[in-house]
Amino acid sequence: MPRKTPKDRSADALRPVKITRRYTRSCPGSVLYQCGRTTVLCTASVDDSVPPWMNRNAERGWVTAEYNMLPGSTNPRKRRDRSGKVDGRTSEIQRLVGRSLRAVADLAALGPRTVTVDCDVLEADGGTRTASITGALIALVDALGTIPDLDAPPLVDTVAAVSVGIVDGQPVLDLDYEQDVAAAVDMNVVMTGEGRFVEVQGTGEEATFTDRQLSAMLKLARGGIAELVAIQREALGRDWPFQ
Amino acid sequence: MPRKTPKDRSADALRPVKITRRYTRSCPGSVLYQCGRTTVLCTASVDDSVPPWMNRNAERGWVTAEYNMLPGSTNPRKRRDRSGKVDGRTSEIQRLVGRSLRAVADLAALGPRTVTVDCDVLEADGGTRTASITGALIALVDALGTIPDLDAPPLVDTVAAVSVGIVDGQPVLDLDYEQDVAAAVDMNVVMTGEGRFVEVQGTGEEATFTDRQLSAMLKLARGGIAELVAIQREALGRDWPFQ
Amino acid sequence: MPRKTPKDRSADALRPVKITRRYTRSCPGSVLYQCGRTTVLCTASVDDSVPPWMNRNAERGWVTAEYNMLPGSTNPRKRRDRSGKVDGRTSEIQRLVGRSLRAVADLAALGPRTVTVDCDVLEADGGTRTASITGALIALVDALGTIPDLDAPPLVDTVAAVSVGIVDGQPVLDLDYEQDVAAAVDMNVVMTGEGRFVEVQGTGEEATFTDRQLSAMLKLARGGIAELVAIQREALGRDWPFQ
Amino acid sequence: MPRKTPKDRSADALRPVKITRRYTRSCPGSVLYQCGRTTVLCTASVDDSVPPWMNRNAERGWVTAEYNMLPGSTNPRKRRDRSGKVDGRTSEIQRLVGRSLRAVADLAALGPRTVTVDCDVLEADGGTRTASITGALIALVDALGTIPDLDAPPLVDTVAAVSVGIVDGQPVLDLDYEQDVAAAVDMNVVMTGEGRFVEVQGTGEEATFTDRQLSAMLKLARGGIAELVAIQREALGRDWPFQ
Amino acid sequence: MPRKTPKDRSADALRPVKITRRYTRSCPGSVLYQCGRTTVLCTASVDDSVPPWMNRNAERGWVTAEYNMLPGSTNPRKRRDRSGKVDGRTSEIQRLVGRSLRAVADLAALGPRTVTVDCDVLEADGGTRTASITGALIALVDALGTIPDLDAPPLVDTVAAVSVGIVDGQPVLDLDYEQDVAAAVDMNVVMTGEGRFVEVQGTGEEATFTDRQLSAMLKLARGGIAELVAIQREALGRDWPFQ
Amino acid sequence: MPRKTPKDRSADALRPVKITRRYTRSCPGSVLYQCGRTTVLCTASVDDSVPPWMNRNAERGWVTAEYNMLPGSTNPRKRRDRSGKVDGRTSEIQRLVGRSLRAVADLAALGPRTVTVDCDVLEADGGTRTASITGALIALVDALGTIPDLDAPPLVDTVAAVSVGIVDGQPVLDLDYEQDVAAAVDMNVVMTGEGRFVEVQGTGEEATFTDRQLSAMLKLARGGIAELVAIQREALGRDWPFQ
Repeated sequence: MPRKTPKDRSADALRPVKITRRYTRSCPGSVLYQCGRTTVLCTASVDDSVPPWMNRNAERGWVTAEYNMLPGSTNPRKRRDRSGKVDGRTSEIQRLVGRSLRAVADLAALGPRTVTVDCDVLEADGGTRTASITGALIALVDALGTIPDLDAPPLVDTVAAVSVGIVDGQPVLDLDYEQDVAAAVDMNVVMTGEGRFVEVQGTGEEATFTDRQLSAMLKLARGGIAELVAIQREALGRDWPFQ
Repeated sequence: MPRKTPKDRSADALRPVKITRRYTRSCPGSVLYQCGRTTVLCTASVDDSVPPWMNRNAERGWVTAEYNMLPGSTNPRKRRDRSGKVDGRTSEIQRLVGRSLRAVADLAALGPRTVTVDCDVLEADGGTRTASITGALIALVDALGTIPDLDAPPLVDTVAAVSVGIVDGQPVLDLDYEQDVAAAVDMNVVMTGEGRFVEVQGTGEEATFTDRQLSAMLKLARGGIAELVAIQREALGRDWPFQ
Repeated sequence: MPRKTPKDRSADALRPVKITRRYTRSCPGSVLYQCGRTTVLCTASVDDSVPPWMNRNAERGWVTAEYNMLPGSTNPRKRRDRSGKVDGRTSEIQRLVGRSLRAVADLAALGPRTVTVDCDVLEADGGTRTASITGALIALVDALGTIPDLDAPPLVDTVAAVSVGIVDGQPVLDLDYEQDVAAAVDMNVVMTGEGRFVEVQGTGEEATFTDRQLSAMLKLARGGIAELVAIQREALGRDWPFQ
Repeated sequence: MPRKTPKDRSADALRPVKITRRYTRSCPGSVLYQCGRTTVLCTASVDDSVPPWMNRNAERGWVTAEYNMLPGSTNPRKRRDRSGKVDGRTSEIQRLVGRSLRAVADLAALGPRTVTVDCDVLEADGGTRTASITGALIALVDALGTIPDLDAPPLVDTVAAVSVGIVDGQPVLDLDYEQDVAAAVDMNVVMTGEGRFVEVQGTGEEATFTDRQLSAMLKLARGGIAELVAIQREALGRDWPFQ
Repeated sequence: MPRKTPKDRSADALRPVKITRRYTRSCPGSVLYQCGRTTVLCTASVDDSVPPWMNRNAERGWVTAEYNMLPGSTNPRKRRDRSGKVDGRTSEIQRLVGRSLRAVADLAALGPRTVTVDCDVLEADGGTRTASITGALIALVDALGTIPDLDAPPLVDTVAAVSVGIVDGQPVLDLDYEQDVAAAVDMNVVMTGEGRFVEVQGTGEEATFTDRQLSAMLKLARGGIAELVAIQREALGRDWPFQ
Repeated sequence: MPRKTPKDRSADALRPVKITRRYTRSCPGSVLYQCGRTTVLCTASVDDSVPPWMNRNAERGWVTAEYNMLPGSTNPRKRRDRSGKVDGRTSEIQRLVGRSLRAVADLAALGPRTVTVDCDVLEADGGTRTASITGALIALVDALGTIPDLDAPPLVDTVAAVSVGIVDGQPVLDLDYEQDVAAAVDMNVVMTGEGRFVEVQGTGEEATFTDRQLSAMLKLARGGIAELVAIQREALGRDWPFQ
């Protein structure tokens, strides 16, 4: 269990993060990622084939992701996605996680394999999509490390993500559920270890925002992601594949 | 038919836009929006009820959107979404169009009604989601104008959208399909008439981008959207509900 | 826009027809077919393969059709067919359109290709299925004309369709929506340019009809179809592939 | 078991018909209808409510039908319709059976009830849709007879159906499977006991037909249906509700 | 029609069983199995391929089953399984029937073929799953007998099934619907001709049961199944493939 | 993490069990149940309504369960159940878990509420259905304890489950995945704290079993369940609601 979030967390502070590698032994990458009370199980599986839409003779591989909230991760209970329709929000999130991982993956070096990273939310307290990305990177590194043929994980950099928003007129980093509900603007930022943008998604439903607010949020996000990259590096220790 | 896109369009120029109001007479708002060869039929329908998930006693209304590409809008032909699953891209786009319209709608003043704006793409040549937003606003104004009880359309501002990207290392406005394929970064920006952001969505799949590139793209977008707002104003003429 | 339907249209007169070829440039056959206020976009796409159920080594091709009403084509708005179930009426119509086109197609001469004609109804005012057939033939001719290998479109004759019915006890040609609702009997007739029947479908829900009424309706239909064939011929001009 | 079809059946002869009323006791109308080797179990159930789309305060009732071929009714085995999609042919047939029954039903006299007639094909040897209609009428009469409140079955006439076609250039009545495959034109005719048309559906896929052929087929059908009505009358005996 | 169930059937007596082989001629095995008023049509079809999940080069075959209740088999009418979801009960039953048949099948001797046994319930009065198993065995023997290459049906023994339960505190054999509703415990037992268990499924929803009650039910079932095997043997006559 | 399973576990020994209550705080009952490497997260949610099929005026409540294996719980990865069809095995298991819990629940004392227990398998190493039942009981007790109105949890006894089988001809308790694959017979037994049967499900696919083997398996299961009940009692400590 991570430490309890202090009530006096400042607007530019991340919630406490706890990373448990090899949480289960049933698949090659298995990371329990906790950020405050938000808890995501990221498992990475390797398959020696590529999706049907890829050229079968291609030498390149594929990295993809699925995202799901368990019914008990929220109160009231969330119904399972068994209707044959993945809801729009779920679809958006899993596409985002997949693109973020591919932005740092060297698919040619991966060879004709598919790595699927499943992000199953055990407890949801805001920031589940950004937690999924930051945790998925660790699971991906672990799974890539089990492929015998590869000298090094085929990744060009790490990737991490954080949410920022405008709450009560002020920019705030790493919103929990309560803050997310109160936010007028919600932005998710995905960056590489070198500080380059992978995705910037800012939304002001029932509200709009100014250039100045956008700049302030991007600055907060940049600082938070630098911290998360340091936490990823510590969790991977000797398995950190980057300089 | 809009004029053909000149080959020498500069990097900060919009494609020619043509707006045909009252294109069909079967529903209260019906706008054929053409931007270069991209053609979207935006129809707005009014229903005197609200979605089941809203409080039935609520006094507020709802504005929503659906997006669809006709099979003949691309070559090769696009298969219809009849599998019971709306694909992820379609779902993302229609959620974006709906949020953009709601950002400028006064749902309390609308009263317990639902306006659905359908954006059916007749021909796709890049920028269909931003064309949908800019055209949907006109259809929405026209449909709201047919509701007898309302003194003025319950809108606080207009909204318009444009795409920008990095092509061959340079920021480019309003990408057509060929440019979109060549772009390393693709960004969609939605703004109000007053120049406030509604959405910023920048994606660098298989690429990343810097702070400086982000700023350059946002500047181009701001200029393009100001032009589109002027075009909307001209198209609505006396029906323009804003100052 | 077609001319407005005169109130005094006689019982054996067609509504005004307008045919716009090459309405969009995204696919090889693209026809906007208007008949009174009924407006159907017929687009024909060519694929160099045949459906999985055909013998893969076959030398013959296939012609098929899909039919769809856009949500804004009616008031109140028609919900999209996204439930995974094509409703019975839609399924019946698209099967009828496909059979009608195949009745005049020389599938052996077409070679191992599939032509799909999509009939998307932009505005519905009665007679959408017969308008789809008459318009689809034009789109089909245009699409076949773009296949390099073929000396002439592999068609043995043209095909056109019209509705007839019994309204207030009298046979009436080409029913609009209001007449369709009032009709005791509704019949759709599909014929070739030579005046041979392809389909005869007469239905008297909540009513029945006599031999004499059947004969009167068939006679009206024959006359209407002859007119429609002349209109098709004029629209295709030099591209008319028949004597 | 019906007698075996003689090889020398003339072109205007029906196959032998056998009707077993009260085949099962689980629902109020249960008829095993056999026509040659074609065998359909028609069961009619009564529900004291009307479909949701009907005005709930309406005094009228509803009659509807479902059609299904059992997997073992053909060889090779037919897959079950469990994909969530009723195939187009099935949908067409059950709509046709429902319309045919409603053409002779007095829905006002029925009162706010729904009668559903299920036509499950146990063995398919051509003409399953017309057998379904002719058998369904008997099951409907039996089910209506069990409703305590009704003085007489709320039916204005009987209804029966038969197929006709052009085989080897000649009109033929009541096609079996082998004849159906060989037929250039296939027509289904539904008529009342008084000889009025309810439905006429003639299809010449991969072929077309002349006015003269249409007349010949209609004449054959009229004779066959008159015979079928006599067979229905005999099967119902004292329960025959018409003059 | 089977004889009517006598009111005084003793607790250890089966209901009267009637087996009609070659009920339809459309597939190689076709058995109408009646047990009291419960009526199941069991049809067995042979396909010269194996399911996709089996090794395509395998020499072994597969035996599977599907189960379905016709809408008219119960009162009130049972809705068809057309939603794309097979309900849990149906799925459980068809898996049970398939496993039971495979327990006595020699899949290697069958060779690379699939036999599908469809159990369609025409009338349901309790015990439909056990009737399906006992009848399916006969249909399977008949279908296997039509495969030219096989010297003998590739079966190692027969299989039959019966239900038992605790009604009013007493163990009872072969429950009809009324008894089933009243039973505190419901058990289905599947055994081979030699008296070995294939399946034992005892359920005490809203109740529990003791070791002694379990033993009493198993003893009743053993006796009933011995009787059913004798009935199977008589029905198959000279086609009985076992000693 | 539970202790590693010793290689020399005897045939009548359970794998080590570890129960973590309040594993997440997002719902009232949340139990991580580990049995050897099999890990199931059981979360119980309370809803103040009853399912639509229950009489709305009823005073009774409902207890139900859902079961799901996470994609990463097995290697190779298990695909998600998002096709709109819950597979047969999943459906069987969640029905079994639900029935088992209801066998000890006092639905009248529960009042008009629904408790849903979700059993999400994080790692699968055999026995996931029986682990789900034993863990679900703890989550249910915890969730019932949070309902303010209830004096005591409305349960009449505890319930626990274990698997047994015949491996290499010998009866074995609590099969792990490797043993399960090797087993000729697989049986799941569900019992109350008092030692009464709730369910007995024994299956010998591709094998059969004798009376003597059945008795030996039932004896092993009885012993294992008594141990599990003691473990449940210890885990609940002062919250154990039974004598």
